[in-house]
Amino acid sequence: MSEPVAGAPVVVLNQLGTAAGRDIAALDPRVQVLDDPDSLPWTRAREADILLTAPRHGWREAPRTAPAGWPGRLRWVHAASVGMDYFPPWLFEVPQVSCARGVAAVPIAEFVFAALLAHSRPLSDCQVTGPAPWRSTFGRVSAAPPALLAGQTLGLVGFGAIGQAVARRALAFDMRVLALRRSQAPSDVGGVQAAASLHEVMAESDHVVLALPITPATHHMIDAAALAQARAGLHLINIARGALVDHDALLAALDVGRLSAATLDVTEPEPLPPGHALYTHPRVRLTPHIAWAAGDVVGTSTRKFLGNLARFLDSQALDDVFDPVRGY
Amino acid sequence: MSEPVAGAPVVVLNQLGTAAGRDIAALDPRVQVLDDPDSLPWTRAREADILLTAPRHGWREAPRTAPAGWPGRLRWVHAASVGMDYFPPWLFEVPQVSCARGVAAVPIAEFVFAALLAHSRPLSDCQVTGPAPWRSTFGRVSAAPPALLAGQTLGLVGFGAIGQAVARRALAFDMRVLALRRSQAPSDVGGVQAAASLHEVMAESDHVVLALPITPATHHMIDAAALAQARAGLHLINIARGALVDHDALLAALDVGRLSAATLDVTEPEPLPPGHALYTHPRVRLTPHIAWAAGDVVGTSTRKFLGNLARFLDSQALDDVFDPVRGY
Repeated sequence: MSEPVAGAPVVVLNQLGTAAGRDIAALDPRVQVLDDPDSLPWTRAREADILLTAPRHGWREAPRTAPAGWPGRLRWVHAASVGMDYFPPWLFEVPQVSCARGVAAVPIAEFVFAALLAHSRPLSDCQVTGPAPWRSTFGRVSAAPPALLAGQTLGLVGFGAIGQAVARRALAFDMRVLALRRSQAPSDVGGVQAAASLHEVMAESDHVVLALPITPATHHMIDAAALAQARAGLHLINIARGALVDHDALLAALDVGRLSAATLDVTEPEPLPPGHALYTHPRVRLTPHIAWAAGDVVGTSTRKFLGNLARFLDSQALDDVFDPVRGY
Repeated sequence: MSEPVAGAPVVVLNQLGTAAGRDIAALDPRVQVLDDPDSLPWTRAREADILLTAPRHGWREAPRTAPAGWPGRLRWVHAASVGMDYFPPWLFEVPQVSCARGVAAVPIAEFVFAALLAHSRPLSDCQVTGPAPWRSTFGRVSAAPPALLAGQTLGLVGFGAIGQAVARRALAFDMRVLALRRSQAPSDVGGVQAAASLHEVMAESDHVVLALPITPATHHMIDAAALAQARAGLHLINIARGALVDHDALLAALDVGRLSAATLDVTEPEPLPPGHALYTHPRVRLTPHIAWAAGDVVGTSTRKFLGNLARFLDSQALDDVFDPVRGY
């Protein structure tokens, strides 16, 4: 299916901006780029062999069913996204779909550690502006030192690229790492312990990181029942999708202090409506879906597409193919 | 010298509190404990074979020269401290001196990463309380993502237990680690590059961690000349001793933006006088010498002494012997 017609240009409808467009055009003389970040992506499907898009390009306004004539001449859709839940299912009714799997793993792993350390060693609470607070803060902290991450248990729900990037850092911090994976790999991987159940992860962990896709099977997996199993004082970190968590149940668990804290980079919906309790709860740190945004993430994502484009032109199998049945 | 007289009790003058005293007395029936956290330590030297003390126990008021009769019957002084600069030189005029080397390495390494991530991923700047700041913060961060630690260079000045604990974590974060060591080990150690000079560390590093003892050779090593060599935007982290840094030169480098930030857990003196510019400089994070204070640091320190006490009773060589000539 990915065999170009000999001699015909391979047209890429590029929605990632002109810088990416230049890089794409420079890859191979057979490639012709249509730069168009503004059109609703499906309206120009008939003009291109390849669609390079991202969640922000009009997909929230997409029709529920495939537009007439979809997928046109499209042979491949590459989404510059890790989660694919923002797209309508009919987007995937093309011969090949790939995604930006792994692109955000390092930015998100660093975000997770920023959250872990902001929780366990909140330096802003220890900054002093004169001799009296110097002495009182020294006395307070040395009399009741905060816990170390070393020796604590980090629970990972999901063990894809993000979970593995978090795990590698956590092991260097001498944390115990307990990972719940969909694939039933038989035993421990590189010091990471395999959890048998979500219950085990919740009951054993000081911090739980949600790093898995949203699918019908994972919707509201962190509900009242899961939170009731939580180790007292658990810190929940959600950098995946808001709908993994039942917000009402989360608020109840925070109110009674069963959870000591929640770091939420994602919510459902985004943003939450004005006045939502999660915005101002004293145990919640809410950030606007920016855990992925660090370093040259656009460049990394573009390079991932270029690698796949080279494979496409060579009629090789693509990397990071999206499986619509699994949902990731 | 460490051979106890057969049959006589081994008397430990313990200044670390009664909990430590109970653990010490329980170690061996030959041990007799004198719990006394309040006396000036040198006044009771004639009564004990072993002195277990810490910087806070009156050493700032110590006489400049050894009191008459020092060291009495003392055969060993153990200081529950990593840096030994708070003690008068005559304290070390006893047969054996040991220290708590390494006890603070993990707490300090986690503090360093709290500082690195508070600098590179300041979550408090990204917390939002409503839909409008959600959207504006998302726009701001995604348009200009902060730098990753991955790929940055961490310079270590000093490569003892603290430097090594920091290095292990930094390597898991995919940082380049460049260490300046006093001992001229020939080559790279476990992924850590050996720096040839302080100049190289300052010029190449995005973050520099000072993790070395204060001695006449290291006093004000971070002076105007060293700071002039700094890579633009360098972040300096001092968790060792304030007098390693010339504060006036540091303030000048921060004022002109040559350094982007300084995280100072230590100063000279401590605390700084009221109104000192470092308390409120917008590029400075000043904490009151608490980097060591996390986890069960007192328990770890006590266990370190107990291990040495068992060796002492067995007439074995002590661990973590302090060398007054080197100063560490």
